[in-house]
Amino acid sequence: MTNNRLSYTSLVKTLSWENGVLTLLDQTLLPVEVKVEKQESIEQVWDSIKKLKVRGAPAIGIAGAYGILYGVKDKTDLGVIEFLGELKKSADYLDSARPTAVNLSWALRRMVAKANTIIKGKPASTSKDIYTVLEKEAVTIHEEDKMICRNIGLNGKGLIKDGMGVLTHCNAGSLATSELGTATAPMYLAHKDGVSFKVYADETRPLLQGARLTSWELQQSGIDVTLITDNMAAFMMAKNKIDLIIVGTDRVAANGDMANKIGTMGVAILAKHFNLPFYVACPSSTIDFETKTGGEIVIEERDPEEVLFFGERRTGPEGMKVRNPAFDVTPYELISGFITDKGIIRPPFCENLQKFFG
Amino acid sequence: MTNNRLSYTSLVKTLSWENGVLTLLDQTLLPVEVKVEKQESIEQVWDSIKKLKVRGAPAIGIAGAYGILYGVKDKTDLGVIEFLGELKKSADYLDSARPTAVNLSWALRRMVAKANTIIKGKPASTSKDIYTVLEKEAVTIHEEDKMICRNIGLNGKGLIKDGMGVLTHCNAGSLATSELGTATAPMYLAHKDGVSFKVYADETRPLLQGARLTSWELQQSGIDVTLITDNMAAFMMAKNKIDLIIVGTDRVAANGDMANKIGTMGVAILAKHFNLPFYVACPSSTIDFETKTGGEIVIEERDPEEVLFFGERRTGPEGMKVRNPAFDVTPYELISGFITDKGIIRPPFCENLQKFFG
Repeated sequence: MTNNRLSYTSLVKTLSWENGVLTLLDQTLLPVEVKVEKQESIEQVWDSIKKLKVRGAPAIGIAGAYGILYGVKDKTDLGVIEFLGELKKSADYLDSARPTAVNLSWALRRMVAKANTIIKGKPASTSKDIYTVLEKEAVTIHEEDKMICRNIGLNGKGLIKDGMGVLTHCNAGSLATSELGTATAPMYLAHKDGVSFKVYADETRPLLQGARLTSWELQQSGIDVTLITDNMAAFMMAKNKIDLIIVGTDRVAANGDMANKIGTMGVAILAKHFNLPFYVACPSSTIDFETKTGGEIVIEERDPEEVLFFGERRTGPEGMKVRNPAFDVTPYELISGFITDKGIIRPPFCENLQKFFG
Repeated sequence: MTNNRLSYTSLVKTLSWENGVLTLLDQTLLPVEVKVEKQESIEQVWDSIKKLKVRGAPAIGIAGAYGILYGVKDKTDLGVIEFLGELKKSADYLDSARPTAVNLSWALRRMVAKANTIIKGKPASTSKDIYTVLEKEAVTIHEEDKMICRNIGLNGKGLIKDGMGVLTHCNAGSLATSELGTATAPMYLAHKDGVSFKVYADETRPLLQGARLTSWELQQSGIDVTLITDNMAAFMMAKNKIDLIIVGTDRVAANGDMANKIGTMGVAILAKHFNLPFYVACPSSTIDFETKTGGEIVIEERDPEEVLFFGERRTGPEGMKVRNPAFDVTPYELISGFITDKGIIRPPFCENLQKFFG
């Protein structure tokens, strides 16, 4: 059985492309309402990215790659140079929806570069030819992400054994990617293999991605999942409910320090205290050798209102000082291993990350 | 200067008794609205306790002691036996507002016992005489609690030095007691002494006592307080923002294990990891020699809706499994000391708790 023949029918469809139409699951409505929204125009895709209807670095990149097609599909009668101008304009426009999303710019640049390559390689190509190749390129970006997640899952699923409790933090799941997610990929594949285990999902304040997204997508897939508040993780560990921790990451430094959603480092410290394995699932592309250590990673401080309000309801006093760092950096010595699409990387990370990916 | 001459005008008035009238700060409206509610009848006091307008073990006890007076103040024309019957009826009625609140039953029993003592000691007493003594007894209960908190503050304030950051969890403050609170007492007194320090308040999910109550009452008093979500504590420690942790407790076992609001044990583990002192502030009455170790403490599991909803807003999926333990038990080896009204108790706790309080 090859990877491609695995069936994931029970999985949430974060986004799909069929007959030239992009549909997105509107994540802002979860977990209250499940609404798949057909995208009609590039403006709508821009809006969906802006309003976080689609979120998670890989998913945003894929949405951008498909979205750019909407910007040029009616322009294939133009000459190649004009067509290319429209393509570039569409890329710049979509990029402005979330300027700090690295994967979005990356996917848009890749689409524009592909068009340029075609023109250089086959000067006789028409705009229609280019459009056809661009659509294939967007599908390739999508398929590559699926494959990366599948390989993370295949490499990591052996860590999950019968009877285990697995803790995760935030959402590094299907909803953030194209299919299996990163931290969730080993869970989906172990579940598919019939392994019987439980997942505990931290709610992940302030934005509650664990409550709203992770617990929902695991529930949909039939995995036995229990939601807890972040401050219950230590209790669950003390009660021997947790045997393994798997989280995602936004960036891994050359020495193995890694940045992820606020609260991750706390979970890693608890795991060390209770002598539990703490794994980080990520695509190879997340490993950034330009960043020597976690100390170089700048932590974004987000809007105080996220901490002071909950929906419409005020929870903290007016005028209250607030800290709201979006991420923290877990030092390499708290990490048991990185579950990547190329295999599980174990300490010493400085040496082994370089050996695999350097 | 004696303790009694300290002025606490900047402090929140959780409850007060003047000219035979009880007023309560309605804590359910905090931090959005500050409303002091005059209590007109025993039924209203019952309702205020039931609806958590007044909360925190000591504060509920004091409210109960005053509340029982409302039940009998119009009954002083009755004969002593009938008056005592009414008193007992009032006690039973108020006790039913929160059947598991140990301090409430304790205060009500103490009031009834006092009346019995008077009758036995001075058989000629009228119901009016008894009422007068009962009012004094309620005031004494209130004053005793103030004194306990002041002594905790005096014993603990030396731990807080200029430039420090102090982390606390949940609300063991003025709002839970009569005046200075327990965990907050050293903070209020250090602040009064002109020590310059910062407090970081964990919001304390699921019920957000840190966001709604602690951060509000410290802000009111002019202390420099910053609100964080529970999962930011590790980040603040890693950034050297925290030098000291002070929390309250619901029960201390004979060996020094202690139960407190869920999340406390996690903070203690983080404190150990970052080599920070972790103190527990409590009245001597919290130390329970009947409980040998924390393993004997039964942890209440609360309504899943507290985790799945936030006000009116659903945050977790329908049908989601939830854990919602109200407390956790911090093992004695993570505790630097107990700040009590009798002094700071340091390890070995088995020996030293017995020596001071056994």
